[in-house]
Amino acid sequence: MDVYEEAVRLHKEHQGKWATASKVPLENSRDLSLAYTPGVAEPCRAIQKDRDLSFAYTCRGNMVAVVSDGTRVLGLGDIGPEAAMPVMEGKAVLFKAFGDVDAVPICLDTKDPQKLIETVRLLQPTFAGINLEDLSSPKCYDIEDALQDLMDIPVFHDDQHGTAIAALAALMGALRFVKKDLRTAKIVVSGAGAAGTAIGRLLVKAGATGVTMVDVGGALHAGSPGLNRVQKALMADTNRNLMEGPLALIAAGADILIGVSAPGAFTAPIVRSMAQESIVLAMANPVPEISYVDAKAAGVRVAGTGRSDSPNQVNNVMVFPGLFRGALDVGARKINDEMKLAAVWAICDLVSPSQLREDFIIPDPFDRRVAPAVAAAVAKAAMATGVARLTVDPEVVRASAAARIRPRS
Amino acid sequence: MDVYEEAVRLHKEHQGKWATASKVPLENSRDLSLAYTPGVAEPCRAIQKDRDLSFAYTCRGNMVAVVSDGTRVLGLGDIGPEAAMPVMEGKAVLFKAFGDVDAVPICLDTKDPQKLIETVRLLQPTFAGINLEDLSSPKCYDIEDALQDLMDIPVFHDDQHGTAIAALAALMGALRFVKKDLRTAKIVVSGAGAAGTAIGRLLVKAGATGVTMVDVGGALHAGSPGLNRVQKALMADTNRNLMEGPLALIAAGADILIGVSAPGAFTAPIVRSMAQESIVLAMANPVPEISYVDAKAAGVRVAGTGRSDSPNQVNNVMVFPGLFRGALDVGARKINDEMKLAAVWAICDLVSPSQLREDFIIPDPFDRRVAPAVAAAVAKAAMATGVARLTVDPEVVRASAAARIRPRS
Repeated sequence: MDVYEEAVRLHKEHQGKWATASKVPLENSRDLSLAYTPGVAEPCRAIQKDRDLSFAYTCRGNMVAVVSDGTRVLGLGDIGPEAAMPVMEGKAVLFKAFGDVDAVPICLDTKDPQKLIETVRLLQPTFAGINLEDLSSPKCYDIEDALQDLMDIPVFHDDQHGTAIAALAALMGALRFVKKDLRTAKIVVSGAGAAGTAIGRLLVKAGATGVTMVDVGGALHAGSPGLNRVQKALMADTNRNLMEGPLALIAAGADILIGVSAPGAFTAPIVRSMAQESIVLAMANPVPEISYVDAKAAGVRVAGTGRSDSPNQVNNVMVFPGLFRGALDVGARKINDEMKLAAVWAICDLVSPSQLREDFIIPDPFDRRVAPAVAAAVAKAAMATGVARLTVDPEVVRASAAARIRPRS
Repeated sequence: MDVYEEAVRLHKEHQGKWATASKVPLENSRDLSLAYTPGVAEPCRAIQKDRDLSFAYTCRGNMVAVVSDGTRVLGLGDIGPEAAMPVMEGKAVLFKAFGDVDAVPICLDTKDPQKLIETVRLLQPTFAGINLEDLSSPKCYDIEDALQDLMDIPVFHDDQHGTAIAALAALMGALRFVKKDLRTAKIVVSGAGAAGTAIGRLLVKAGATGVTMVDVGGALHAGSPGLNRVQKALMADTNRNLMEGPLALIAAGADILIGVSAPGAFTAPIVRSMAQESIVLAMANPVPEISYVDAKAAGVRVAGTGRSDSPNQVNNVMVFPGLFRGALDVGARKINDEMKLAAVWAICDLVSPSQLREDFIIPDPFDRRVAPAVAAAVAKAAMATGVARLTVDPEVVRASAAARIRPRS
């Protein structure tokens, strides 16, 4: 049975993957009188007096909404909110397994950004964080920005920032291995959609000066026609030489090529034209821009893909569970760039210099140290940048995350 | 420690009561490839072709939203959506423990009925049912009616219908015990808010002809000023003699007195003025209209309250878990009156004629037979009235519910 048939069987057998559970006993009338009436009235009254107590006294403090309108699901496109549910509930169970975050899949029956924004805003009293997922570009930018302004809890579009954080973590490991400097490296990002622009922005934020964004029409620069506002803003810090031309031209001599574009986009001649000790992260899913084997055969020094069946898997599952774990543990109001970069360093620091190999630049997604390390680093950055409601020792965040995340083999 | 202090301690210790869980293993990359990418794409594609498959292939088929705006929470009034969370998550864990329904607490930051309606409508692709909770009256009627029209999944305001079903189930047991006939009994319902009007409507639907609604201003009749539309409609079938006056007057000679009004509203002289073999259900929460002991001392033959510390507890927890279990199992599009009455009969039939006693007219809320019996009866009624998407043998529904509900002591 192939993976697709097996996946359908799994989903059908269990009626999906996500479920609810009770954290308290409900065995007798005493239990009921504490969890429900009359006892429940007292936490209600306490929260009425101080609304922030809802984070401490209810499940809200550990709840994240995984919100989509189904307009850009995986590589499947605009398949609608019902058909997006398997992805959102998949994400929700990963949140639980990897971060002990109680995430709820929420698929909304609208393509109108304003209606989506208003709906998510009204959900605020229920959640401590919002994970936006699989929204089409460019409306995903407006939705995230509007919600960040309107809400007092973190709003995080994972297709942008989760991908960017995972990519940068892998890239940092690769750069340490080949002993090149991010600040001066020549970096080409292929694909200027949600993920590509987020990678570009985070690269710049991390100090990279040699970034060029390339889209289907070729290299983007300040004078390119039809740029959206996020692409336009990015042009201030990328491709300052106003290079023009297709990927095959722009990639020549590059140190780093990052793909969030289309299967097969990186041909052997393209990667062969790169600089010595080249790094290629081909993250198109499920079929990468170039396979790990083909990239290596074409002389790439360090290659990575999104796939679990080859080395150096770049996967957001290393990011979002720990990131939200840390944000929730300190009651963060935002997830800012400092917190994102803290997650990057936390992940790549788990591979020590002596452990680095060309086929081991980033921890395994199942490495149980990842989420606790990310949580601690993110919590620390949230406190340092003033967006945390609570003060908690980052080492306590790490230890607590390690303890609450179910042991995995 | 009293129940209130203990409840706060419980809520604080566990950060609330509700959590999420995974129904599938997530231990290695093979698991991930089935629950998430790339395998997840296949159920997505199947649902894209047939949206109803979302009920079978995803958690949606077992998901119910417990929705409130926090405007009328327990006896606490308009305490806001954050403060309503302990009640909604309490309800959600009861849904799980008693019906294996995956319910999500959803508290919305709006008091505007139109915004609440629009928000819930947009949530439709995520849920198989909507349980409305603790909405103020009379807007609760408009919200429920509008959503029932707009949505293709059951919408159920539990404060109305769950309470009415539980009350009728207890009443039927009591009537069997005292050998009186619902159709001819003189019935007074004290309180004409959401619960009271729903009780009145269900009594009429069940065949009662002698119902009189009494509110703070006295008996309601077709000529009463200031009736809302639901009260007005009810006047066609209640108090046809246009009786006027306070409860003390109207209750004289009554066979049945049902209270969903205010603590202490039923004085000893009032219940003493009732007919022989009188039945009193005093359901104000947490302090009833008259205590069980006081009602008995005043000569009431069968008394019941909402409290777990006296006999004949009338509690919605006997209703909503099994009701939604049955509705979900046959993919019901609505919960109609036939399904509500089926739940009534299913509950009261669990107490056989030979078991009936004045202090045992209704099963214990922890009786494990209740939810499976209600589920089977509701499923059957849904299929008989043409609102079920699926055809399932009711005995299979009963057996499946019994098997999936976690054993309780």
